[in-house]
Amino acid sequence: MAEVWAFEDFEEGGTIDLGSATVTAEEIVEFAGEFDPQPMHLDEQAGRQGILGGLSASGWHSCAVFMRLFCDGLLLASTSQGSPGVDFVKWKKPVLAGDRLSARITVMNKRLSRSRPSLGLVSMRSEMFNQRGESVFELENTIMFLTRQAAAAG
Amino acid sequence: MAEVWAFEDFEEGGTIDLGSATVTAEEIVEFAGEFDPQPMHLDEQAGRQGILGGLSASGWHSCAVFMRLFCDGLLLASTSQGSPGVDFVKWKKPVLAGDRLSARITVMNKRLSRSRPSLGLVSMRSEMFNQRGESVFELENTIMFLTRQAAAAG
Repeated sequence: MAEVWAFEDFEEGGTIDLGSATVTAEEIVEFAGEFDPQPMHLDEQAGRQGILGGLSASGWHSCAVFMRLFCDGLLLASTSQGSPGVDFVKWKKPVLAGDRLSARITVMNKRLSRSRPSLGLVSMRSEMFNQRGESVFELENTIMFLTRQAAAAG
Repeated sequence: MAEVWAFEDFEEGGTIDLGSATVTAEEIVEFAGEFDPQPMHLDEQAGRQGILGGLSASGWHSCAVFMRLFCDGLLLASTSQGSPGVDFVKWKKPVLAGDRLSARITVMNKRLSRSRPSLGLVSMRSEMFNQRGESVFELENTIMFLTRQAAAAG
């Protein structure tokens, strides 16, 4: 693994494991209380009565958990110049209290910017799996990374 | 405005204002410390030196702020049955500490589910504007709502 991920280090078709995190009931309720106070994200009983089958994380909480794994596993030690957004997010299965989520990215394609050759665009599919190996979350987006040379030049 | 939003209450082409929220420096740093600890989301000085021009909210924080406005302005008083994901998210401009964001949704189209006629699918474009009226954030997705009749039948 590269010490600092620059544009050159991404390989089309390659995968990168980002580690895992457990999503606790306390974290689910705290996030939901601030940002998504729907009953199934706040209360175990309400969750069981609903279609998600238990106290379940807000879909946006799943995005945030993914982002933390992505930061710790790659982005904070990279030449990232940010991203204009995401192409899609799929909440494929409920994320329930106590689930352990593992994140993995797949490099779909990469290319240098035509207008700014110090910069490369890397398109990624990102996915999280629960402790049963089920894919619960997927997103795709494109992130800008400086080339190693441009980063070294500061 | 409907007391409880059911499928029938959404009008294609109609817009719904969801109110506004100020994003404080403290909130930006707190969210970033937990989920997106990149320097420009944690530190004013680092933000000024970067491309975003100041202490700026994580893109995922913007999503979460939108979700709260959506919950308070519509979703919590609705027949929502959830959403499978989002079609895209665009982070169009930086959200800086102290910005006041107003959210508005536009109903793009709606249709009853073929397999389950008690359920309707409503596709929405959601947008947030800052205090200067600049569009800073956009997403599109489809949300499932029960019909009024189905909701009344429990």
